[in-house]
Amino acid sequence: MRPPIAFSRLGYAYVLASCVLLLTGGCATVQTDPLSAWNDGKVKQEIVSFVAKVTTQCSPDYVPVPERIATFDNDGTLWAEQPMYFQLIFALDRVKALAPQHPEWKDKEPFASLLKGDVKGALAGGEKAIVEILLTTHTGMTNAEFEAIVREWVATTKHPRFGELYTSMVYQPMLELVAYLRANGFKTYIVSAGGIEFMRPWTERIYGVPPEQVVGSSIKTRFEMRDGRPELFRLPEINFIDDKAGKPVGINEFIGRRPIAAFGNSDGDLEMLQWTTMSGGVRLGLIVHHTDAEREYAYDRNTEFGKLDQALDAAAVNKWTVVSMKDDWKRIFAFQ
Amino acid sequence: MRPPIAFSRLGYAYVLASCVLLLTGGCATVQTDPLSAWNDGKVKQEIVSFVAKVTTQCSPDYVPVPERIATFDNDGTLWAEQPMYFQLIFALDRVKALAPQHPEWKDKEPFASLLKGDVKGALAGGEKAIVEILLTTHTGMTNAEFEAIVREWVATTKHPRFGELYTSMVYQPMLELVAYLRANGFKTYIVSAGGIEFMRPWTERIYGVPPEQVVGSSIKTRFEMRDGRPELFRLPEINFIDDKAGKPVGINEFIGRRPIAAFGNSDGDLEMLQWTTMSGGVRLGLIVHHTDAEREYAYDRNTEFGKLDQALDAAAVNKWTVVSMKDDWKRIFAFQ
Repeated sequence: MRPPIAFSRLGYAYVLASCVLLLTGGCATVQTDPLSAWNDGKVKQEIVSFVAKVTTQCSPDYVPVPERIATFDNDGTLWAEQPMYFQLIFALDRVKALAPQHPEWKDKEPFASLLKGDVKGALAGGEKAIVEILLTTHTGMTNAEFEAIVREWVATTKHPRFGELYTSMVYQPMLELVAYLRANGFKTYIVSAGGIEFMRPWTERIYGVPPEQVVGSSIKTRFEMRDGRPELFRLPEINFIDDKAGKPVGINEFIGRRPIAAFGNSDGDLEMLQWTTMSGGVRLGLIVHHTDAEREYAYDRNTEFGKLDQALDAAAVNKWTVVSMKDDWKRIFAFQ
Repeated sequence: MRPPIAFSRLGYAYVLASCVLLLTGGCATVQTDPLSAWNDGKVKQEIVSFVAKVTTQCSPDYVPVPERIATFDNDGTLWAEQPMYFQLIFALDRVKALAPQHPEWKDKEPFASLLKGDVKGALAGGEKAIVEILLTTHTGMTNAEFEAIVREWVATTKHPRFGELYTSMVYQPMLELVAYLRANGFKTYIVSAGGIEFMRPWTERIYGVPPEQVVGSSIKTRFEMRDGRPELFRLPEINFIDDKAGKPVGINEFIGRRPIAAFGNSDGDLEMLQWTTMSGGVRLGLIVHHTDAEREYAYDRNTEFGKLDQALDAAAVNKWTVVSMKDDWKRIFAFQ
């Protein structure tokens, strides 16, 4: 039975009112400014506008909550990555700690240089040297043992320039952004070239990102019953490199959905940004550009760690949002 | 300042009252019987008692919500796996569909036997033959294309004995159990030897398990920009086998937390059950024993698909809950 006209009109008015309420709700959120560490301007406006579009039920660009997936690179996007990736600093510290058990390292590169304090010389061996350092220091124990080592290092070791714990070297505006997206129904993932087991012990506490939402590089592990207890042993063999073209692969394998927003800062994030933004629909691709030598670091096309070259060019072509840390961020670190 | 005794007593009474309320709440939940397809008895009691222990805040065995991880095998645990794994039936169907494009298959095993209708002959080649059939039928296209093929097959193909869609071959008591755990704050994961991309297109609709909570076997994929669009191509190379000792490895890689409850039905689930239950704390390990030839199938130690032998012995030693489908389940399939 067709409802009387009066009821029908009421129904229509109700739908309209709902939309108005929703829109007002959206505005109210903005007014309390969940992004208070961001300067007002084009970049902040692009973020807020994207979130409004995909979360407003009356919007043609509305995205249901389960599909609101956002992926964040870690090094250089959520926390700093200079003077070198923090995980590499951790690995160098481990070499020093393990040296007494490895007298043979005195004559073996890259360890010999490292133990003489010549980091540059040790890393001159390039990717091969770095992989050897990582595999040597990150394997040969159970996952639980490795986690304990990471926890202790993270709780005690300080950044050489800023004198703060590495977990304090996180960008306040990005913490706000992660929380803002979550408050708007997003599931926020880390998708990093960093080691998955190096990040998981602290990402929940620092970023509010639980272990099951951390995607990263990994080494192979082997299950074994030892003295009646099940253990996972870390093997000196790479399992997966979650970098560059590996990021969409990792995202697909772990999440099985395509993100609608992706955040990075280097060429390692190029393919993740392409995967996220170039298949139709309103999408947000964002690059953090390190432009603030005073409060943090300034680098892009010519740097050993966190090179931003191709992805910066691609950002212009694809209209990705580019954040200038110097101009767009009111604060960088909480301790400043 | 120490509070006056009256206030202190009031506080104590309040805590007690909270506990009573919580316990009552627990009882109320049981009274509505979210497990109505389960016969009353020891097995059902063990499940309910476990959930009460880990979810009652006053219990010494209380587990906070984020750590309530439950992992479910799929084949033979959530849906049937006879007369053979459904994904293998899918692969055989794909061989037939692709045969016109592969005239060379007429003279090449295992395809030649298959195309003559001799499934037994084709599978006589063992694991090697099965892997060849799977790789041939599951790769050589984009992930999106593969997903479309799976969706169509799942929507149209019926089980040879029961004449129902494969997605109707799911166990009602297990659907109840998955929902019951979720209602009690659990995150429910599938951890299956089946292909991750074969399951993800329908697990959310059938089990309420979203793609990001499906762990499974996978082939390698390659990211590529093609005609300006990002694609993931499926390569004829195995990436990960999520079976036996691979299950704890997969759980650790994808979830990064140890489950507190695990559900399986075959020797392929043994290590997942060990990993889940044998490291202290109140844990639930459960095995579905196929004992009902009339309503489903009866098999355990001697079967080609879903062999339950070592894990059945381990269940007795480790006090895992063993479900007899015949005795413990009031209903099996919704269509019965």
